[in-house]
Amino acid sequence: MSTDNQRPLILVSNDDGYKAKGINCLIDVLAEFGDVVVMAPHTGRSGKGCAITSEQPIMYSCVSSTQGVKIYSCTGTPADCVKLAFHALLTRKPDLVVGGINHGDNSAVNAHYSGTMGVVFEGCMKGIPSVAFSLCDHDPDADFTPTLPIIRRIVGEVLKRGLPKGCCLNVNFPEKAPYKGVSVCHQANGVWTGEFEAHDHPRGGKWYWLTGEFVTQDKDSAADRVALANGYVAITPTRIDLTDYDLLREMKNWDL
Amino acid sequence: MSTDNQRPLILVSNDDGYKAKGINCLIDVLAEFGDVVVMAPHTGRSGKGCAITSEQPIMYSCVSSTQGVKIYSCTGTPADCVKLAFHALLTRKPDLVVGGINHGDNSAVNAHYSGTMGVVFEGCMKGIPSVAFSLCDHDPDADFTPTLPIIRRIVGEVLKRGLPKGCCLNVNFPEKAPYKGVSVCHQANGVWTGEFEAHDHPRGGKWYWLTGEFVTQDKDSAADRVALANGYVAITPTRIDLTDYDLLREMKNWDL
Repeated sequence: MSTDNQRPLILVSNDDGYKAKGINCLIDVLAEFGDVVVMAPHTGRSGKGCAITSEQPIMYSCVSSTQGVKIYSCTGTPADCVKLAFHALLTRKPDLVVGGINHGDNSAVNAHYSGTMGVVFEGCMKGIPSVAFSLCDHDPDADFTPTLPIIRRIVGEVLKRGLPKGCCLNVNFPEKAPYKGVSVCHQANGVWTGEFEAHDHPRGGKWYWLTGEFVTQDKDSAADRVALANGYVAITPTRIDLTDYDLLREMKNWDL
Repeated sequence: MSTDNQRPLILVSNDDGYKAKGINCLIDVLAEFGDVVVMAPHTGRSGKGCAITSEQPIMYSCVSSTQGVKIYSCTGTPADCVKLAFHALLTRKPDLVVGGINHGDNSAVNAHYSGTMGVVFEGCMKGIPSVAFSLCDHDPDADFTPTLPIIRRIVGEVLKRGLPKGCCLNVNFPEKAPYKGVSVCHQANGVWTGEFEAHDHPRGGKWYWLTGEFVTQDKDSAADRVALANGYVAITPTRIDLTDYDLLREMKNWDL
């Protein structure tokens, strides 16, 4: 961790690749707070969740290096990027791991599929305060300007307070600004419908493209996806302990 | 769901591919309970977590079809397999989704990386009771015989009782039998060390293979990885709601 004469060290990654507009807006904000090291996928890695690459080797290379901001490109997944940065780049423990700003929503149960959250889960597993930022707009040229003052506030608070061990933050911004406010939320329930589009394959059979519509099954205004729909920035405190303690107690009565 | 005159319908997948010994042992057991539909990756997909394939199309094909057991091979990830089975194969809602038997440990925080758990998270998100089975032995010819009576008991109980909405089970078997018993556990804490092996690339630079050693940071005998080390089968009740409710309450005091 930083000592008194060192600026905070911030590790950044994403799942849209190091060239994406979102991560570059994020880097500019984070450079106000400390030294920034970016290890991000060389191309898009959307939907990779916490996936790691175990069946082939990965590589990285330096893209640019200026005073306070070093950017590296990696052939692996978002989680690989964090692992490899810790292994090969960082000379001290970072004060913060940040994922994003993602081009697209990572609220509700979709946190499980999110490579942006893969970055943050990995940072959290390594004991570092970790925060994911996502804007509900897939446009490669989305306008991230309205998100930046709020990112500044959240980063400032997390650098000051830290986060409890095993906890990280999943922050999602509504597509449209101005925002009505910031809401601390729980993960919304929901399901995907119409998940594939099928087409005939030229050599027989069909091929399937993932698509679909997410249907929120939650009406609680404190559910992240509901808060977003109502115009609020949703912060979902997230934990890496997946245990269901209620079911754990109940299962003591099972015949096992 | 099954009506009185229908056998239970069980959807099976894994992350080692449809040819793996583990899934074929599992299919034989599950066929005792109901009609089995298998949609599994055509090759190994270890460490894919909940990853989904959004940037290319996927396909599937029938491998074998006998009375009560139909096996399909899919080019996608474990989570894709479950999604595509629901979309293209299943004519009614299954009674159970099962992942495994994985060749290797999926306990502790490694549940986040597990494609076997990716199967089960996906089943759970679709509202189906879902159970993952993993044997702490990576050998392609591992002996699954000692796991089978316990799998029978767990499958029987889950078919009878169901599981609460949003909950699934992560079951891990110790490498060596006989087992000392079955323990209902919480997810163990731990960290990976020495995560990469670096080699010189023939065209310059280095390439990195993921490797490493997992160090359990838990001494509680009810932590899944500790129970496994002590010779117990570990059942970790797992939830898809990632919200940290303690931090949610605490963050009401933050300056956001």
